[in-house]
Order: sequence, then C-alpha cells, then structure tokens
Amino acid sequence: MTSGRRAIVAVLVLVGIVTTSLLVIPSARHAYTTSNQSTVEEDDLSTLKQCPANIPLPASPPAPVNIWASLSVDETVAIDRWLSADERGLNLTSADVASLNDNIIFIIEAFRPPKAAAVAYLDAPSDKTLPKKFARVTIQHGGAVPEPYIMDYLVGPLPISKETQISPLTDIYHRDTVPFNARGYTGLPFGELQRIGYEILTPLKDAIKDLFGTHTLEVGASGPFGFDGSFRRMWITWKLSGPGNWLQPIGFYQYIDFSGSDESKYKVLKVVYNHQVFSSVDDFLGAYNNGTLKRQPQAVHDGMDDKWTTRERPGPQRDLDNLPGPRTVSFAGLRFRVDRARQYISWMGWGLYLGFDRDMGMSLWDVRFKNERILYELSPQEAIAQYAGNDPTQTTTAWLDRYFGMGGFTHDLLPGYDCPHEAVFLPATTHSSQGTIHRERAICIFEKETGRPITRHIGVDGRKFDYIFYLDGTIEVRLSASGYLQGAYWEPAQEGYGTRIRDIAMGSLHDHVINYKVDLDIAGADNSLLHTSTAQEQITEAWFDEDWGQTVVQQKIHRDYIANEDDAKLQYPSNVQGIYSIVNKQQTNSWGLPRGYAIHPGDSPIRNTVVGSKRLLNNANWARYNMAVSKRKDTELSSSNMFNFNLPGAPVVDFHKFFDGENLTQEDLVAWVNLGMHHLTQSEDAPNTRTQLATSSFYLAPANYFDADVSMESTNAVVLTESKIPGKLYDYNEYGVVQANCVPHRVPSFEYEDMQIRGLDGQAKLGPKTVDNLRNSENVFRYMKIEL
Amino acid sequence: MTSGRRAIVAVLVLVGIVTTSLLVIPSARHAYTTSNQSTVEEDDLSTLKQCPANIPLPASPPAPVNIWASLSVDETVAIDRWLSADERGLNLTSADVASLNDNIIFIIEAFRPPKAAAVAYLDAPSDKTLPKKFARVTIQHGGAVPEPYIMDYLVGPLPISKETQISPLTDIYHRDTVPFNARGYTGLPFGELQRIGYEILTPLKDAIKDLFGTHTLEVGASGPFGFDGSFRRMWITWKLSGPGNWLQPIGFYQYIDFSGSDESKYKVLKVVYNHQVFSSVDDFLGAYNNGTLKRQPQAVHDGMDDKWTTRERPGPQRDLDNLPGPRTVSFAGLRFRVDRARQYISWMGWGLYLGFDRDMGMSLWDVRFKNERILYELSPQEAIAQYAGNDPTQTTTAWLDRYFGMGGFTHDLLPGYDCPHEAVFLPATTHSSQGTIHRERAICIFEKETGRPITRHIGVDGRKFDYIFYLDGTIEVRLSASGYLQGAYWEPAQEGYGTRIRDIAMGSLHDHVINYKVDLDIAGADNSLLHTSTAQEQITEAWFDEDWGQTVVQQKIHRDYIANEDDAKLQYPSNVQGIYSIVNKQQTNSWGLPRGYAIHPGDSPIRNTVVGSKRLLNNANWARYNMAVSKRKDTELSSSNMFNFNLPGAPVVDFHKFFDGENLTQEDLVAWVNLGMHHLTQSEDAPNTRTQLATSSFYLAPANYFDADVSMESTNAVVLTESKIPGKLYDYNEYGVVQANCVPHRVPSFEYEDMQIRGLDGQAKLGPKTVDNLRNSENVFRYMKIEL
Repeated sequence: MTSGRRAIVAVLVLVGIVTTSLLVIPSARHAYTTSNQSTVEEDDLSTLKQCPANIPLPASPPAPVNIWASLSVDETVAIDRWLSADERGLNLTSADVASLNDNIIFIIEAFRPPKAAAVAYLDAPSDKTLPKKFARVTIQHGGAVPEPYIMDYLVGPLPISKETQISPLTDIYHRDTVPFNARGYTGLPFGELQRIGYEILTPLKDAIKDLFGTHTLEVGASGPFGFDGSFRRMWITWKLSGPGNWLQPIGFYQYIDFSGSDESKYKVLKVVYNHQVFSSVDDFLGAYNNGTLKRQPQAVHDGMDDKWTTRERPGPQRDLDNLPGPRTVSFAGLRFRVDRARQYISWMGWGLYLGFDRDMGMSLWDVRFKNERILYELSPQEAIAQYAGNDPTQTTTAWLDRYFGMGGFTHDLLPGYDCPHEAVFLPATTHSSQGTIHRERAICIFEKETGRPITRHIGVDGRKFDYIFYLDGTIEVRLSASGYLQGAYWEPAQEGYGTRIRDIAMGSLHDHVINYKVDLDIAGADNSLLHTSTAQEQITEAWFDEDWGQTVVQQKIHRDYIANEDDAKLQYPSNVQGIYSIVNKQQTNSWGLPRGYAIHPGDSPIRNTVVGSKRLLNNANWARYNMAVSKRKDTELSSSNMFNFNLPGAPVVDFHKFFDGENLTQEDLVAWVNLGMHHLTQSEDAPNTRTQLATSSFYLAPANYFDADVSMESTNAVVLTESKIPGKLYDYNEYGVVQANCVPHRVPSFEYEDMQIRGLDGQAKLGPKTVDNLRNSENVFRYMKIEL
Repeated sequence: MTSGRRAIVAVLVLVGIVTTSLLVIPSARHAYTTSNQSTVEEDDLSTLKQCPANIPLPASPPAPVNIWASLSVDETVAIDRWLSADERGLNLTSADVASLNDNIIFIIEAFRPPKAAAVAYLDAPSDKTLPKKFARVTIQHGGAVPEPYIMDYLVGPLPISKETQISPLTDIYHRDTVPFNARGYTGLPFGELQRIGYEILTPLKDAIKDLFGTHTLEVGASGPFGFDGSFRRMWITWKLSGPGNWLQPIGFYQYIDFSGSDESKYKVLKVVYNHQVFSSVDDFLGAYNNGTLKRQPQAVHDGMDDKWTTRERPGPQRDLDNLPGPRTVSFAGLRFRVDRARQYISWMGWGLYLGFDRDMGMSLWDVRFKNERILYELSPQEAIAQYAGNDPTQTTTAWLDRYFGMGGFTHDLLPGYDCPHEAVFLPATTHSSQGTIHRERAICIFEKETGRPITRHIGVDGRKFDYIFYLDGTIEVRLSASGYLQGAYWEPAQEGYGTRIRDIAMGSLHDHVINYKVDLDIAGADNSLLHTSTAQEQITEAWFDEDWGQTVVQQKIHRDYIANEDDAKLQYPSNVQGIYSIVNKQQTNSWGLPRGYAIHPGDSPIRNTVVGSKRLLNNANWARYNMAVSKRKDTELSSSNMFNFNLPGAPVVDFHKFFDGENLTQEDLVAWVNLGMHHLTQSEDAPNTRTQLATSSFYLAPANYFDADVSMESTNAVVLTESKIPGKLYDYNEYGVVQANCVPHRVPSFEYEDMQIRGLDGQAKLGPKTVDNLRNSENVFRYMKIEL
C-alpha cells in the first residue's frame, strides 16, 4: 500500500535535494551516529566545491516591455526640460529654490496605460501594440492669481517629440483642481513654520524651562490640516529631543493657522496647557506670570530618564544569543528567475511584473500562474491611522499616509535583517519636488522554507508589505507594522485613550486601516461576485429513527451572487460564516462549478472603528468596510489620492462615488480589500511596536479554479511505501530530487547606504546634510527641532 | 544621530553571525562583485572546517524530575502485572486475545500530580517535595454482570510497593462509570462487525456488481454511536477500495445495531440507496429483483477513473523544480538546549517540560520566560468535526477525535518534510489495549529564521500542532490540518452540503473546532479576567473651534473585569473590538498597570456553527464559544474525555458544569480556547486538503506584563549610525555577533520507520502485519475492506 503522507501534501514544504551540474558529489564519505539522530554522513571536505552564487537565472517575461515601469531618470529630465520651456507658459521654478508663490513641478511619474491597451499588448506583444507612454505631472501653481492651486496633467506621448502634449488629468478624480491649502510639502522640515516656532518659544523661554525643565524640544503636528480647502490649520505638540522623541511629548499645544501662500499671515490661534485654553502666547504667558496657571499633575523635569526611547540594548545577553541564528541557503542555487531591467520575476509557474510609485511604493502587475492571468493589478492604495485622546493633537489626528509618499520614503532594506542574506534586491526610483530618489535595495525577493515559498518584501516607513506565493496558486498579502508610536503626554485624564507606557508617556489608542486594489481576472476579465455563506437548518429524512429523533440540526451552504455595486460594500460576518469570491460564471471547472478565487481574511481582519468623524468624512470611505467590489474602470483607478488627506469634506477621490448602481455580473471587477489593526497600546510597544501582533493579512486562494490541487505537481515531495520485509524501513520516492552538499558563500559584511538623490535636472547634487533633511522630510509635519 | 531601524526591532529577525570556538575563521579570502549584489567574499575552501553537528547542548531543567512525563515501559509492565495478580480480583484478560465479554485494561497512563503539589516541588525541588506518582488505568469490565461497563482507576503510589492501592477515579468526571455501549475499540479494524459486513454483501453480490460495477469495496461509518449509552448504532457507507477511498463513496448505506456484548445479536436495521429506505437487506434485494428500485442519477461503473485520489504526481515538472528548495542551517550550532531524558527544552530565556498522552498527544508544562512561570499547562483537549449532508452518514456525523486517540496514533514526523532537516526529534510512548507504542520522531524542535524563532511540531493524524515561541514573550499556538476529506457520493440533491470535486464525489461541508486548555499563571496563580473593548464616542473639548465644529467622534477603551464564571463563556466581538486577558490585579508593572497576557485570535478564529445538534448536545459544549474562562480545579482537569464521543446526552465530562457561578477575581484561572475551521470544501481539496488555509491560530502575548519590549535584549540585531563622512556608508553595531562560515553536514539520506509495538508485558511481539492493522485501527470505525 502506498502511504500518502499528508505532510507531503503541504505546499509549504520546499526542502529536498537535487544533483545538478552545478554541484559536485564527493566520492569519499564516512559516517557517524549521533545519540538521537539518524546516521550523519560526512563529506571529505577537500573535495567539496563552492555552492552556486545567489544570482538568479534570467527570466522570460511574456512581453519585452514592462508597461508599468517607472520613468527613467533621463525620461524625467526630458519631461522637466520640456515643461520648463518658455513655450509651455508654465512659468516653473525649481522646487528646491522656489517660494510658496512660485509654480513648481511636484511629481513626475509614469501614467500607466488603460487596461484594454495593456491587455492587447500582452496578448500580442509587438512595437505596434505597445501602448503609448504618458507621464502624470502634478504642478503646484503657487503663483496663480487670484487663487493658487494644484493640478494634475498628462504629458505624452513619450519620449518627448513634436507630438507630445500636455493636458489636464481630471477624469480619474472627483474634482478638477486641488486647493492650495491642501498642498503637499516641498521644502525643509517645517520650513514654512520655522519662524512661527521661534515666535512661540522665544518669549516663553523661561516659562518653558520652569514648566518642562532644560531640554531641547522638537515639535510634532496633527492632521488633516483642513476640511475642504478653505483653511490650513494644525495643532502642534512639543517633545523632548532625541531618538524616539515620538514617545516624549510634554503636554504643550498650539493651534496654528497657515492658510494661503503669504507666510507673514501665519499665526497662532490657541495655546493649550493642562486643559487650559489661551487665545495667544501672550495670554498663556500672562497666566504663567500672574500665578493663575494650573500646573500639570505629572511634571517634566530635569534629570528624568529621557533615554528609554533609544534603541540601546538593555539587560544581560540571553543564553546562546552570542551565536547567530539559523540561516537559509539555497544549496543548489536560487530557484526563482529575475529580469532586473524589466522588473519581472518568475517562480514555479508564477510570473509577474513590478511597478513602483511615489505615493504607495511597489505594485504587482499581470500576475500569472500556470500560464493564466490571475491578477491584472495588486497594489496598496492608502493607509489611514486615526487616533483618539483627551488632548488637542491625538483627538484631531487622522493620517492618510499616501500624502507623505510611502514609496518616496522607502528606506533600503537590510540584508540579513529585513530579508534573508541570500535575498535578491531590486532598486526603485521616484521623482518629486524632493528630487529624483534612488534606492538600491527597495525590494527583495527570496524563497522561504516552511510555509511561505516565495516572498517579496518592501520596507516602507515602518510597514512591510509582503506578497507571498504558494505552489497551489494561493497569494498571501501581509502587512506588518513597527516603529515608534505616536505618543502622548500621560495624565490620569487620558484614561481610556491609550495606555501609560512610562512616567509621563502614553501610547494613544488608534486604528490602522490599509486599502488594496485587487484586480482579479478569473479566466478572463468578465467576472461575478459570489457570496458563500452558511446557516443552521433543521431537517427531517425518511431514514431517521426513534433512537435519535426525527429531526437533525445541521448547517447548509448558500451561494448568492451580488449583482449590483450598491450591495457590494461588505463586512466580514460573525463567526466567519461567509466568504466572498470573484468567479467566472461562464467558465466552469470539470465538475461544473464556476472557476473562482476566494478572498479569505487572515490575521486581524478589521475595518475602521470610528465612523462619521469629520476628519475622515469622505476621504477614506473604503475604511468603513472590510472589502468592497466595484466594476473596474480606467476612470476609477485608485481609491485615494495624496491630496485626500487635507480634503475630508471634498476629496479628490470619493470612494463612495465608485458605487453607483452598476452591474457586477460578468463584468471586469475590482475588489478593494482592507487590512489593519486596532492598536490598543501597551508597555511592550516601547521603544518600538513589535511586528508579530501588528500584522494583518488576507489570502487570494483558488476556489474551484482548478479541478484538483495543482501543488501535487511538485517534485520536492516524498511518497512512502511500506516495506515488504517485516520490520524494515519504508521505501520512498523523492522524484529524483536528491540531497546536495557544497560550501555556501560567505555572507558579505554588513553594509548600508542611504538613498541617492538627484535634482530633476538629473544631476547628483545633494550632500549628506540634505540627505539627512530629506530623510526627515517624510516626517515633515511631524518633526522640527528647536534649540532654545 | 542613531538610526533605530525598525527592522531591528523585529523579534523575528534571528539572522546574524558570531565567531565562537566552534568555528574557524579562514585566513585567506578573495572577493568578487556580482551584478546587483554586494561584494561577495569567497573563502579558501581548503581551510574551512565542518560546521558543528546539529546536536543540542544539554539543558538545565529547574527540577530534576519531569513530573508530567509518561510512564516507562517497565512501569507499565509492573502495573499490568500488579493489576493482573489474583489478589486484585479483577479477572483481567490480555486485550489482544480477549472477547467483548472479558475484562481488559484499556489504557495505562501517568496521572499528573495535583497542581499544588507540583508547584511546591518546582518551588523547592527535592526528594521530599517530589509528588507521589500515580497511574490512571481504564478497565473495560466486559465480563461484569448484569451490565458490562468501563471505569477509570487510580493506581499508586508508584513504583509498585506494599503501599500501592487501586481506587476508582471519579472526582474528575460527571459520571462514575461509562456504559459498555460507549466503549472504545480494542481489536482489529471493524473486527466485531466483520461478520455483519459479509452478511450484508454476500447476498447482494450480483446486485452490487450491477449497481456499482466490479470493484473491491471498503466501508466507513458515521458517529457518535449512541446518545446516552442505551444503544450502540451507526450508519455505514461503502467506498471503492484503494488509496484515498475516503473520497470514493458509492452511495449505499446501512444502519447497524451493535449494542451490548453479544455479537450474535448485532443486526442491520435499515438499508438506504438513492433516498429509498428499506428495513432489511432482503427488502432491498426484493426491490432490486422486482425492478421497483430507482437507480442513482450518477452511476458508479466499470472503467471509471478511480485513481484520482492517489497521491501520484500529475503534470509536467515546474520550472527549476528539479532543484531542491532552500534549507535552513545553524552554521554556528543549534541555539536551543534539550534534555532528552527529561523532555525539557530551553531557548533564549524560554524553558518548558513536555508531556505526552494517548488521548491528545503532546502537552506543555511549567512554561517559563525570563525566570517567571507564564503557563502551568498548555494542552489540546478535544477536536470535533461535525458534518452536514443529505445522506445517512454525513448528516449523522460528529466526530470527537479524542475517542480515537490523537496521541496514540501519532505518526513519525518526516525530516525535511514535516520539520527542517536540522530539527531535533524526541520520542513518545503510549500504553493502551493496542499495546505499548513507541515513536522515535513524535516531536520535533527547531529554530526558524524570519518570524518564528522556535517551533515544536507534532504530527497527529493529519493535524499539526505548532507551538511557536518569540523573543518578546509571545507564544503562538497554531493548528494545521491536511489529509483526505470525508467524502460523499455526489448527486444534485447534495447541493448546499458541500462541493462536487469529481464525477460522483463531493467533499461534505463540516466544521472543525479544537479546544485547548491554557492555564496561564501571571506573576503567580491568582489572576483575574480582563475584558478590554473599544467603542465610539462623541466628545466636546474647550479648545475645539468653529472650523471643525464643537464635537469630535472618536473611540475609547473600556476595561472591565469579568468576575463570575457564568459571564465567562465568550465570543469574539464584531470587528475584533475586544480582547480578553488574564491579568494579576495585585501585580502591576512600573507604570501602574496590572501585568497580564492577552489571548489574541489569529487565523480562522471560529466556533462551531451548529448549536443544539443532538449528536453534540452536551459532550462538546466548549465548541459553542470562542473561549471560556473558569476557576482552575484539580477536579476540572479536562474539557473532554474519550468516552464523551458516544455520550452526547450524558457525557463523562460536561463542560458547562465547570461554570457554576464561581468567582474569577484573583483566583487560579484556566482559559479554554478554541481554534477551528469552517470547511466549505472545494475541488482543490482533492486529493488532499492543503494546509495553508486549513490553519487556525491564537497568540498568548504579554500585555503590560513587562515595562517595555524585552526582545530589545537580543544581540542578533543591528543599530545603524549615519556616517560622519558625506556620502559614505553607515556605521553599524552588530553587538559582536559576526558572520561565520563552515561546511554544513551532509543531510542524511531519507529514512522512515514505523512505530514500534510491544505487548503490555513489555515484549516486542507484533509483526508488520499487525503494525499494518494497528495503523489502520486509528480508522477502526471508518475502515474495513471486503473483497467480494
């Protein structure tokens, strides 16, 4: 009898060994036996050769051009020159020397082709079918009269030629222009607020020293800065300076108005200290001087420990922690293929192209498995973080991180820490008013033993996006968060709004929700939305008897199609008694079932707790649901826009407008799927949140897509047969994949280099001081250091 | 500025390198550069030495005796002899030669000491404090008059001496004896039903060939076999013989009565074919012969493909699948310690003892982290699988797998498949009427790169129990299921009760729910149950302004203690807006918060869908909830009992009886936590269910237990500092842990040996034929092969 060990079924098991021409099998061995292990065979070391280097084999993309690729530096420079030419009449100034009253280029980025054109090219790749190339350019018209504004344009076709034109890009948005008060950041951290910072602190120098001790202070802010573009205001909060200042706020707040482009009109509207509200810095100082100011219950004072937020290692070394941990090695060479120029990857029947942009970083395109397209696009859209509190900053904070540019501020991944040593790294480049930023290790690719065959990581500002591909056709989308909390000043009145994590510090209660665009194409683009649920029923059958009674209580599956967008804003049901799938009703498997892919919730399948906050009124409506499904359109490209952050009342993209009664039966569908985390902070979040519970995931899994489990194709598997000789070992078949032995390459010494920056003129120009500033500019509205 | 890279925070990153005396650093190197990777340094191969063997270093258990260890073979033999002595008056017969009317020993197993005695010993280990040792013995009194019955006894103290006594063990159960109709299985597969099987098939030989083709048939059954002990009946169903016969039922059913101990009275009560019910085999044959039998819509016929359920590899080999996948190697040696004799393991501040029993396999005891006990006990309790259908077997099936013995039928783990090649394996031995069964590789231990530092696996009949320990004090409990579905005959009338997976085969809809005992001791045994939830609120504050309005909508945390057992049968809330923790109100961290551990749901946090089924009426009441918390008692040791399976109306352990209004404030508490899966079957479940979606998990995570994140202690970490020289690489600190290089040991050739069996007399006695039978006896009521 053949024993079909279930373990072998596990698609996750990729271990096994093969002999190939890359390897040398030594002729001389000897053996010894350990106390409780199998016999170990040793090699004659002198005959062993070096293992293959971890350089992936070349890949064969289905089409020679990655039509979703980023613009090259040369392309960006050419577009910048063309736009800056007098005949365009745009009156542009280089962003790094511009004032708020100048016109500047804010972003230059590839504009991806319409899906129909893209698919036509993929179906028959040729120079003729290659879609025309366009760039999306965001221009901040600071010099416009009577009102400055921001606008998006299409520039193309590219490369620049006589045919190249510029035209407003409006059909993918729900408003034509962006008000100047909702603008992005362009310069140094808090640059435009440096003056006002000093205006606040200088007259208060002595009062601050008395109230908060002799510390260098840094400043953070809340957001959004406006509701509908009619104003630009924020609460700022002060913190002790140093690593981890996020966690060291002192409880001192000002409300700032910085509406419009005239910096001289920016002003302080309110000062708050210990729940006392003052309409100006002078009023606050008056109360301090005349003794009517009520002091905080917990004093910030000299000599208090302000080093606990650093990442200095505490405590004694743990047992055997002087040794390095285990390390993964592909002894016979890497089993995935990479086309670095085209950013195309393939592995075990999977293949996909990568894209990368300033707003949200990496995206996946034309994801195929076993020669069929599963996904046209898989890309993060937006990430919100909404806070709660009993102080001016936490209560008023609802970040939309796309505004800050999750792709633009990607840090390089650390080999051996973020990704295994043998991972293959890919670069990414983005172009914004900050300049052209290049990271050599923005993306990493590796194959993983036990459970997660192939993983792509990208580190983005404390969030790690993982896309994990399985041998059976399943894709796991996983997000892990870490980094410093947005801390608050702790006092008993904050009870319920987070958790005290130090003497006068707390972590504030907040929700993270992250939206993904999941454009599944199941056996073609025409798909339907299937809701599969279960419920209890009571039945009777002719064969029931007296012994157990004439009825049975059991469950039953209900399969319903959701036919209209208006019914497709979805919540996960209680007890997970329901699953949504994208299926093709006209393409059935051999057993008559519509082929489909199910969207299964994994870890922390949450939506936003708070509904109806004015600060997220209509700019993140996707976060109200676990998932929503709409008809795919080239005019509904993304669920968000970077300027949504400051326009909750009048967003550039209003997700709810996608849901206007359209048919979902056998149409091209997009699922907008959320991940997230309710963060009820705790002491173990200091100094940094740990990733393993701050993780959320969903699965895209074949559901009657195939006739049977295709991971059975794997030859890295074993089948056992009971021995015919009593008491002897089992016979086994490992499909010709046999163990190899060789000397792994020495792990390279650790090294880390920061991003490389060029101006939009293509010239490397910025020294490390500016790199420093740039690195901090991702926190531009959260960070400004002022020494008194 | 020190750059505290979030990546370093990740407790999951265990990669890094150290030089120790175990390693040789070669003196000669040369370097080359790959196209897109860092410089790779090569070693002079001739100077490299072999890596350390994967033999763990010795451990130092806190106490010299594992008081939860299984009995040795010698101890079991001695107990068997003592019980069999005439002066005991038990009139025992050896199980392998006994009839149903004989008295037999059904189980001999260690009975674990009371918690107070165990803790007293751990607090001050000595010969004096060592708890007395007892065995639990289950005796099946088949010869008792007027009614045979089953009963549990305590035998001890051990070793056998003049003081040794036998006494009924009843205080941990809710009934004193088990009715004979609820008994376990003792002999060959379907042994007691062999006769009745032939009685059914022999007269039907021609009819069966006509209706189902010329096939060898095997039989399966449904369960439970009774409600309250008053009868023992089951539906049997016939399948095509061969590997994966589970998936090949033909749609032919009989209802069998096998109540009592007189086999001659066993009889067929009903025959069902194509929804037609007959009261006897004769009646069925009559209908067949007179042409009134209505034939099935889907015919089982000769020549149909019946090989699709085998594990033969289909399709072409995938790209590069001829190469082995990546493999994990601890180049500097294993970093965990194992005391094989005492079954004690330690790693990075963690330490724990292992137990193992026939009913549920591996359990964890006295789990400590950083010198504090976190868990007294962590152990699986029971696993239910309740089915739905439109045929006699599926509708009536609700398995309780403890009955079959999840520990007793553990298979050996496969190195390189179930566990990494370098895993360390531990043995397990159980003693039952089947004999003494020893597995050499019942448990495996390994350290894992990326995300899951240390994992213990145990393979149990298609389920894998993983316990994963993290550097920060978190424990992940994960269960993965695989194996063959319990298939059913497919016809359109089965719509809603599963999914068609082949021509005439379907997978039936079912729920799995598995219960764990989680005896957390947080800073001592006196703990409380904290419910932390969040809800939306609307607030006003003095500092709000006209611009945004005078109110803010946000969320707030509510912390409530659940003070009474009656309120502690818990469901996970909608949108995961609530978490339960075990905390110590009298032991606070430095910030004034009660130290605690939270129980976080992970993947598939479900409970049983069906409530009120007579077949699970009161024998698995724990499955109605996601979790429940009760006061810990030595009389409420387990949420189930193997005989619960056949006693849904009058169970040996009624979980609801644990909840009798007792106080949960600062008492010793036990959390009974469920994992599970709603299995809406699909074509990709053939031939076997894949593990990656059939997985469920929960986390036990410190929640204000420490003052800060203790994983910061790790020296396998890196801290970066920006270079002071413009444009240069970052400085870094790897805490003296540096890379090593050496030649890994050759992976031993694959080998697999089945379990070893001895009689209760201690003698190895059973040949491979019996091993075969024994392996099948785990399916004793699901499997019998009859050749016509």
